[in-house]
Amino acid sequence: MADTLIADLCAVLGDDGVLTEPGDRAGYETDLLKTRTGRALAVLRPRSTGQVSAAVRLCAAAGVAVVPQGGNTGFCGGATPPPDGSAVVLSTERLTRIRHLDPLGGHMTVEAGVTLADARAEAERHGRLLALHHGGLSSRIGGNVATNAGGNNVLHYGMARGLVLGLEVVLADGRVWDGLRALAKDNAGTDLKQLFIGTEGTLGIVTAAVLKLHPLPQAVATALVAVPDPDAALAVLARLQREVGEAVSAAELIPRAGLDLHFARSGGRSGAREPFDRPHDWQVLVELASGSRFFDVAGALEAAVGAALEASEADDAVIAASEAQRAGLWALREGLAVAQVETPGNLKNDTSVPVAAIPAFIRDASVTSAAIVPGCVPIPFGHLGDGNIHFNLNPPPDGDPQAFTARWPELIAAIEDVATRLGGSIAAEHGLGRSKVAAARRLKPALDLELMRRLKHALDPDGVLNPGVML
Amino acid sequence: MADTLIADLCAVLGDDGVLTEPGDRAGYETDLLKTRTGRALAVLRPRSTGQVSAAVRLCAAAGVAVVPQGGNTGFCGGATPPPDGSAVVLSTERLTRIRHLDPLGGHMTVEAGVTLADARAEAERHGRLLALHHGGLSSRIGGNVATNAGGNNVLHYGMARGLVLGLEVVLADGRVWDGLRALAKDNAGTDLKQLFIGTEGTLGIVTAAVLKLHPLPQAVATALVAVPDPDAALAVLARLQREVGEAVSAAELIPRAGLDLHFARSGGRSGAREPFDRPHDWQVLVELASGSRFFDVAGALEAAVGAALEASEADDAVIAASEAQRAGLWALREGLAVAQVETPGNLKNDTSVPVAAIPAFIRDASVTSAAIVPGCVPIPFGHLGDGNIHFNLNPPPDGDPQAFTARWPELIAAIEDVATRLGGSIAAEHGLGRSKVAAARRLKPALDLELMRRLKHALDPDGVLNPGVML
Repeated sequence: MADTLIADLCAVLGDDGVLTEPGDRAGYETDLLKTRTGRALAVLRPRSTGQVSAAVRLCAAAGVAVVPQGGNTGFCGGATPPPDGSAVVLSTERLTRIRHLDPLGGHMTVEAGVTLADARAEAERHGRLLALHHGGLSSRIGGNVATNAGGNNVLHYGMARGLVLGLEVVLADGRVWDGLRALAKDNAGTDLKQLFIGTEGTLGIVTAAVLKLHPLPQAVATALVAVPDPDAALAVLARLQREVGEAVSAAELIPRAGLDLHFARSGGRSGAREPFDRPHDWQVLVELASGSRFFDVAGALEAAVGAALEASEADDAVIAASEAQRAGLWALREGLAVAQVETPGNLKNDTSVPVAAIPAFIRDASVTSAAIVPGCVPIPFGHLGDGNIHFNLNPPPDGDPQAFTARWPELIAAIEDVATRLGGSIAAEHGLGRSKVAAARRLKPALDLELMRRLKHALDPDGVLNPGVML
Repeated sequence: MADTLIADLCAVLGDDGVLTEPGDRAGYETDLLKTRTGRALAVLRPRSTGQVSAAVRLCAAAGVAVVPQGGNTGFCGGATPPPDGSAVVLSTERLTRIRHLDPLGGHMTVEAGVTLADARAEAERHGRLLALHHGGLSSRIGGNVATNAGGNNVLHYGMARGLVLGLEVVLADGRVWDGLRALAKDNAGTDLKQLFIGTEGTLGIVTAAVLKLHPLPQAVATALVAVPDPDAALAVLARLQREVGEAVSAAELIPRAGLDLHFARSGGRSGAREPFDRPHDWQVLVELASGSRFFDVAGALEAAVGAALEASEADDAVIAASEAQRAGLWALREGLAVAQVETPGNLKNDTSVPVAAIPAFIRDASVTSAAIVPGCVPIPFGHLGDGNIHFNLNPPPDGDPQAFTARWPELIAAIEDVATRLGGSIAAEHGLGRSKVAAARRLKPALDLELMRRLKHALDPDGVLNPGVML
């Protein structure tokens, strides 16, 4: 049975379109965080939407599940096959055409396998901004759509969902749904593309997308502001928004513990040094951006930061006076994330809460974690402006990383409980994947789960697409 | 059977919550354009989400359909009951609480029956902007969500969908789905609220919404620019977007015929006079807005308009030097819409096309209409920036309005065909309602209709909610 399917798939995709050797498959069987490893019956590498369609049709007929995979840069196992070898992985890595770009209309049509970096570069060559931006530049557009990716620009431009004008999707029975429209306004019936955004390939496989483009920023101003606590960080953010309106494009919270970790691990590497005369417990990296040179973002930033210092909301501030200084400030933010990936035992979280609840969330999650593992080191950092603080934890300085890892499930559940109690989400921008299915079952209302199941049944009654993910 | 249901509904909603007299019902049985009139078994006026839930439960048990209705300001009969008296109208007009407003977090929670005007005023009292804005200020929030309303601010702030953070919805079986979350980022499972936005009450009844708030505009600049044709209008828009980026908040196309109609019907009323020294065939009303006083929108507008004049893209321009002058320019835009409502035989359309296709759309639709009714007068106006040109038509100057009205179906179909051929939509911001169901069946791909039906079946298998609308 499996042999017949493989032969049929080879006939459709070509021999190099079907990987069955363990060595060839290995890179597709675990994701970036490598917390789980599966086994694929085969890895399919179609070159066109037609080939995706034909492959899904064959798999559906054979009763073999299909796990769609883009850049495989996820954190939650959403593109990792189950361990029993019952499913094929369908990689979009050869769907890499940019089909169309209209600078005036402000949209581009790209296939699912185009990387985020390539799509952004192509837009920029045409004087336009693809506003989606996050650490995973080698992620692919299909995965960004399927996970409704977030990142650093959400405050100004929204999530991936807001940038998707149209989609082309292969359904669970192999039929192609053509929703590749470039319309800002379309209410002629149910907006079907919404079904496939953020549902992690469980309702359809995105093969191409029409993405909205924005004007390129013409003016940018960046500052690092030292504040006594997260409440003060919010006060500074509110002040900024009053002064500059929608131009606040980033507001990243950075804790002392994150900087210390970054400095300790980067040693004397250039740029990695204390930004202020004396260490501060908390800092906010704020950036203003505008698509117009008529917006004096530098003046606005100086005025707002000056007022925050005068009002004692801020203790100190550094405003970037050059692109190099700007890069240096962002290197602090990015360095503390990298330093955590390199720290044995570092626990990552991806909760969000309403913005006003951030101080309570950090306080309560810190107390709760310390009660479970005394001495563990919270590193709550990230997107202050949209409530998505990554409440990460390091083992106690003198503790054993493995012993700490053994307590992860307890810690994760406790942090998820705090976020839920404050009206938050257990998965802000990384999705549920396979890793958070149990947590979703535990914490989401029964009616939400029932509605999700009804949708799944309506669109994929035989469970062909990514079974075990999200539900 | 019907009597029992009415008695049960009265027990739940109170006697004044159930209107059965023809005189009391009449206002709920036709919408703003009055193109169709239905008959309701009764009009229900619940005061709370619990009452909506109980009423839907009773109706579902009795096999009686429910037509949700907000401000009843629609154009397509989406909230009009069928003529056979088989359905009740459920009006949200008494669900008028503003439950919560968080200026810092930038969101407000309002019940479905709050009018757009009241919601905007409440946000403004807290120094915030509810960015949804269109002619229907007496429309209600539930209807705005259910139709994914558009309007004048879409270019800058997007459709209603982009402003909805959370929803509370009564399902077809009467259960209440609580999705009242205020999170900018939430990917913990399917984003269920998307199902209820823009589906015109066919999948659930919106009873409350969490809406995103923006900073209030601090700086606004407005100009009317005379251009030789729609191609030049697009060139001016492109130039503006290059100069001022995302600050272009409106770009409304105004044709000569629209101004003539406005002047003829308003007579000598103040403000209604030719804006330029000599009449021009086309003009664009452009507005820039920013939430920051540090954005020199006036300077940007002057620079862009000056450059457009120099490049001969524009023939003339008036920049508003005061709020009174700004209001005068907008009165031209609003006046031509009102003048059409007052013109016997005026045919309204609500198509959209990709922005770059607007000139071709206007050209082709004009030729097509003239072939059907020689001498008819196209008045294509509206939202240049998002492709939503209302290609309206007046009868020939010497023609009989009733004879013209008899040709509407042919004209509507022809214009819908042109829009569809150019990759457009037959319903940009007014929805399908009952009026456009046949057109959707004719023009939408079969797979789209099938997926819409599958969703309807998944969420409302017995067809309780708004049957005959959208599908």
